[in-house]
Amino acid sequence: MGDPRGVGPEVVVKALSREDLHQVCCPLILGDPLILQRTVEVLGLRLEVAELEEGSILEMPKQGLWILPLSRLLPGKDPTEVTPEESSRASFRYLEKAGRMAMAGQVEAITTGPVSKGAIARAGIPFQGHTEFFAGLAGTKDFVMMLAGERLRVALVTTHVPLNEVSRSLKEEKILSVVEITGRSLKEYFGFLNPRIAVAAFNPHGGEGGLFGGEEEIISRAVDQARGKDWVVSGPWPADSLFHRAVQGEYDAVVCMYHDQGLIPLKLLHFDTAVNVTLGLSFIRTSVDHGVAYDIAGKGIASPRSMEEAIKMAAQMALRKREKSKR
Amino acid sequence: MGDPRGVGPEVVVKALSREDLHQVCCPLILGDPLILQRTVEVLGLRLEVAELEEGSILEMPKQGLWILPLSRLLPGKDPTEVTPEESSRASFRYLEKAGRMAMAGQVEAITTGPVSKGAIARAGIPFQGHTEFFAGLAGTKDFVMMLAGERLRVALVTTHVPLNEVSRSLKEEKILSVVEITGRSLKEYFGFLNPRIAVAAFNPHGGEGGLFGGEEEIISRAVDQARGKDWVVSGPWPADSLFHRAVQGEYDAVVCMYHDQGLIPLKLLHFDTAVNVTLGLSFIRTSVDHGVAYDIAGKGIASPRSMEEAIKMAAQMALRKREKSKR
Repeated sequence: MGDPRGVGPEVVVKALSREDLHQVCCPLILGDPLILQRTVEVLGLRLEVAELEEGSILEMPKQGLWILPLSRLLPGKDPTEVTPEESSRASFRYLEKAGRMAMAGQVEAITTGPVSKGAIARAGIPFQGHTEFFAGLAGTKDFVMMLAGERLRVALVTTHVPLNEVSRSLKEEKILSVVEITGRSLKEYFGFLNPRIAVAAFNPHGGEGGLFGGEEEIISRAVDQARGKDWVVSGPWPADSLFHRAVQGEYDAVVCMYHDQGLIPLKLLHFDTAVNVTLGLSFIRTSVDHGVAYDIAGKGIASPRSMEEAIKMAAQMALRKREKSKR
Repeated sequence: MGDPRGVGPEVVVKALSREDLHQVCCPLILGDPLILQRTVEVLGLRLEVAELEEGSILEMPKQGLWILPLSRLLPGKDPTEVTPEESSRASFRYLEKAGRMAMAGQVEAITTGPVSKGAIARAGIPFQGHTEFFAGLAGTKDFVMMLAGERLRVALVTTHVPLNEVSRSLKEEKILSVVEITGRSLKEYFGFLNPRIAVAAFNPHGGEGGLFGGEEEIISRAVDQARGKDWVVSGPWPADSLFHRAVQGEYDAVVCMYHDQGLIPLKLLHFDTAVNVTLGLSFIRTSVDHGVAYDIAGKGIASPRSMEEAIKMAAQMALRKREKSKR
């Protein structure tokens, strides 16, 4: 459900009020039934949310909309009276439970609403972010943040790093690992038999043969190492024209060296429909591509498009995983 | 005309075979009449190019398509026999002449076809690029490279610099100068009364309040300095969502800190219709947004779209300059 004080509850109920989402999955909300009920009323939606008991998770009926109550922040309170501390502690509880359920195979995928890293940290819980949290639970260091829209998918080699420090973070093994996890995931979860992966250069014009910087040599070695697997990988390509080519259908994903290299084209094409996917975990995890947006929370104006797409993508990935395991 | 061995001659004749371009300007080609005539024949175009004599530049008739002959590389030769040295020396001669004519007020604007920096340098002529060459002629160090398409305009604070060196190149005065030249040019040449200029941040998420890098402080100071003029300037904005907002109509131009920050969104939206404009010179200069493309030269498959747009933009800028000077 995400942070109760953010737009999470709103985008969850808006998304799950759509019939078509229930046709691709059986959603279970982990969150706060009081907050959620209030949100349904404020939005004037006709949506009944029933509480599921902890013990009956595996017997959850396929019909209806269920919530596993993990907090009750609102008895008699105005939503604005819920403290940041209560709210962020609760949001962390939902994540923990989701992770444990996924690890135990009780759910086939997790889709997360937005939480506030800062607020959780201020509540005294060590927390670097969703992605790192789930990677820790899954016991892996090899995970990849991918942002995916209908026309473009980007996988990031570095994420929240000062741009001036990216150069020294570009290691051959790391780039190789991102290409391989991206390749495997495109096969396993996205239905590509022979994924075509383009790797972006770091410098303008791809460095013009070493004239502007040498990072392309490292990238080039990683690309060479990644060849000959079940995917077609090429690069480093000058980044300025690469995304046009990817969008025209030349590539199934672009591996990017730094945050904005991938996020600029992605958000330009898919402003409110992009989905954040964590690849390389032992379970499926998608997320909305936006933050808690405290400033517009409770106003009924948050767009549920990213949440809808995140749920649909998780469902589709789970379906492909099932089909694979049947073979 | 650009480098005779590149796609320049082809995109020039293709563009100038369009009647509508002749309605917005009286084009004079600086180049090689033999190469051009051969190109017209190979493309099967019905286009008559007449030679203009040096002395009659100011009496050029408004009708027809004229060329000022500055080289004759083809007498009896196969185009493939023209050496890189001859070709690049000739292309440099066209540029020199164009610059001198513009400085003397004999032409109202220059549009350049593609030349090869490397080939000109190998022919023994010191040459850093079109933009720097014209800035040198115009005697200014304060010039700005802008890339413009119908939906997005980006102005670059740094251009062909290793990305790892951009951080140390970000000086307050330089950013301020780019914002001011961009603002003045949008007023003077692009018809904006109160240009709205967004300045992009350097780090992911705009640095998150100093958490990822400190370049945003420098940018912020430059933005503060640039306020209170005849334009509305704001920033630094996180770059990932900024271009979407610009394209939605919130801004008339985005000032970008590094090459790919501006070129990635620009080429994604305007792959073959973007125009390269040099701002801050004493004359108008636009250019195609592509290179010599030796690999496809002479094949008749080069797209003239960028050349068409570059000529149209130069004509429109000249018209606005005329109107301003009348007032």
